[in-house]
Amino acid sequence: MAVYTKVDDQTLNQFLDRYDAGKATSFKGIAEGVENSNYLLSTTKAQYILTLYEKRANPEDLPYFLNMMEHIADKGLPSPRPIRDSEGKALQILSGKPACLISFLSGVSVDETSDAHCAAVGEALALMHNALADFKENRPNDLSLDGWEKLIADTADTADSVSSGLSSFITEEFEFLKAHWPTNLPSGTIHADLFPDNVLFTGHKVTGIIDFYFGCTDALAYDLAICINAWCFDGNHEFVPSRAKRLIEMYDTHRSLVPAELEIFPVLCRGAALRFLLTRLYDWLNPVEGAVVNPKNPLDYKKRIEFHRTVKDTASYVV
Amino acid sequence: MAVYTKVDDQTLNQFLDRYDAGKATSFKGIAEGVENSNYLLSTTKAQYILTLYEKRANPEDLPYFLNMMEHIADKGLPSPRPIRDSEGKALQILSGKPACLISFLSGVSVDETSDAHCAAVGEALALMHNALADFKENRPNDLSLDGWEKLIADTADTADSVSSGLSSFITEEFEFLKAHWPTNLPSGTIHADLFPDNVLFTGHKVTGIIDFYFGCTDALAYDLAICINAWCFDGNHEFVPSRAKRLIEMYDTHRSLVPAELEIFPVLCRGAALRFLLTRLYDWLNPVEGAVVNPKNPLDYKKRIEFHRTVKDTASYVV
Repeated sequence: MAVYTKVDDQTLNQFLDRYDAGKATSFKGIAEGVENSNYLLSTTKAQYILTLYEKRANPEDLPYFLNMMEHIADKGLPSPRPIRDSEGKALQILSGKPACLISFLSGVSVDETSDAHCAAVGEALALMHNALADFKENRPNDLSLDGWEKLIADTADTADSVSSGLSSFITEEFEFLKAHWPTNLPSGTIHADLFPDNVLFTGHKVTGIIDFYFGCTDALAYDLAICINAWCFDGNHEFVPSRAKRLIEMYDTHRSLVPAELEIFPVLCRGAALRFLLTRLYDWLNPVEGAVVNPKNPLDYKKRIEFHRTVKDTASYVV
Repeated sequence: MAVYTKVDDQTLNQFLDRYDAGKATSFKGIAEGVENSNYLLSTTKAQYILTLYEKRANPEDLPYFLNMMEHIADKGLPSPRPIRDSEGKALQILSGKPACLISFLSGVSVDETSDAHCAAVGEALALMHNALADFKENRPNDLSLDGWEKLIADTADTADSVSSGLSSFITEEFEFLKAHWPTNLPSGTIHADLFPDNVLFTGHKVTGIIDFYFGCTDALAYDLAICINAWCFDGNHEFVPSRAKRLIEMYDTHRSLVPAELEIFPVLCRGAALRFLLTRLYDWLNPVEGAVVNPKNPLDYKKRIEFHRTVKDTASYVV
C-alpha cells in the first residue's frame, strides 16, 4: 500500500513512447497492493495501471502472472490486461524495476460483504477457473504444505508472544493437515488470494478481479476455500452461513463440484485459514519498515480454524 | 504521501448522497501530499479528489483554505474547486476527519523543470495573486520570522548532527533576516508552497495549481521568492539564471513588481530558503513514523542561501 519507486514525468513519457497508448494527462501514485508500486495513469486514449514490481516479487514469476492475466482477459472476463508495446513485449524495465502497463478496471472494492456480493464472487471464481482450464503454464503453490512448514519454523519461537499456546495450536493443525491434505482433486490455475480488496464491484456486479501475484497451480476447490475464509465471516470473525451458501451454490452452478471436493472441503478451509494465519503471523512478527498499513491480526484466522474444525462436510456450509 | 484514513465503500456512498456528484465508479487512495489522506474518485458524472485532513492540519484554518481555493476557481484559474453539497457546505466530517470533495484537475507534475515551465509558473503565480486581490480573508504566515525562530529553537541542539556548524549558520542567517526583513511590500494572499509537485502541466501549459494548505497573507514578492528557490536550481542545487529570468519576467508581465520589491528581492529569497531549510531540518530530525517519503536533505537549502548571499539585486537574477 505505497509507492516505493518514483517515476518522473520524462521517464514516464519515454516509457509511453513504446506503446500505442496516447500521451499522459494525469499520473498518480496509488495506495494499492502491499507489494508493488502502482500508478493510476490517464492518457489521451484510456486509463491504465502502471505497476513496478518491488523486491518481494520474484522476477522469474512475472511472465507467468502476466500470461495468466492475459489469458483470462482474452476470455472476456473482467480482469486487467497487460498491455504489449509496439514490439509485443508486456514485461518491461522502468526506473530499474520490472514493470507492466495494465488496463484499468472501474469498480469499487467492498468492505462489508453481502450475500449478493458472495454470489457474484462465487460465479466469478468459477468462470475464472473455467477460463484458465486451457492455460498451459504451471507454477507450484509455494504457500501450500511446504511453505506453511517453513513459516511455522520461522515463527515457532515467537508465536506465543502474540497469544499464549499459539505455537502448539499451529503445530497440531499443521500435523492434522499434513495427514489429511488431498492430492486427488481437480487441479488447475487458481488465484489464491481472492479477498474483497481484490474484487471490484459496480453495485453487486463484479467489474474487476485484480492482483494475480499469488496465482499458481493447485486444487481448484482450495481457491473456493480461500474465498469462504475471505468473504463469509463478519467483522467479529463469526461465520455467516447465508454468504457461504450463495458463494458455494453460484460457484457450483458454473463449475460443478465433484464428490471428492465436497467431502474434503472443510479440510481445505482449514488449510486456507492456516495459510493466512501463518502469513499474517509472520508479517505481525516482522513488520515492514515504512509500511503504511498496520499488520492484520493473525488471531482472526485462528478463530476461523476453530470454526472449520466443527464443520463435518460441505453441506454444513450451505445450510 | 500516504492514505492514513480508510474510507469504506458504504461510508463513501453515504457521503456522495449529500452531493449532486453521481455514483462512485472507482475509488483509489493516492500518494499525494504528505499531510492528508487523498482519494481519486471517479463517479458517473466526473472525477474528484476526496481529501481527509489529518492531524497536522489545523481544523480552524480549513475554511480559509477552501474559501481561497473557491475564490481562485471562481476567477477561472486552473485550481481545484471545493464542491458544495446540496446544503451548500464544502467542509464535511468523514470517517471522523474533516473532509472535502474537490474537483479533479488533469496534468502531470514535472521533475525536471525547463525555462518554459518556469515562464508558465511565473505567469500562473501573478494571475493567482491578481485573482486573490479581492479575497477578503486573512491568515498570518506562521512560517515567517516568528515561526522560523520557533523552528530554530526546536532544532538548535541537534542541527550540528546533520552538518557541522549548521546551527550557527542558521542563527546568523536568521539574525540578518530579522534585521532586514521588509514590512512595506505589497501584501496579499499567497500560496507559499508553489513547488513543482504542486503544479500540474500538460506540455508547458499549467493545468493545475494545487495544495493550498500553506496559503496565508504575506508579501506577494515572497511567494515569487519561494518559486525562485523551488524552480530555478538544478539537480545539483546550482542556480539556473535562464529559468529565473523567465519566471520573474513572466510574473512581472502580469503583475508589475514595484521598486521596493525589486530592491529587497534577494533578502526575500534568503528568507524563503531559510524557511525550507528549517522545515526540512525539523522533518529530518523528527521523521514521521510510517512515512513513505524519505525526508528531504535540508542542506540543499543551505546551498541556496549561500548563493542568494552573493546576489546584489533582482537584476542579478535575470541576467
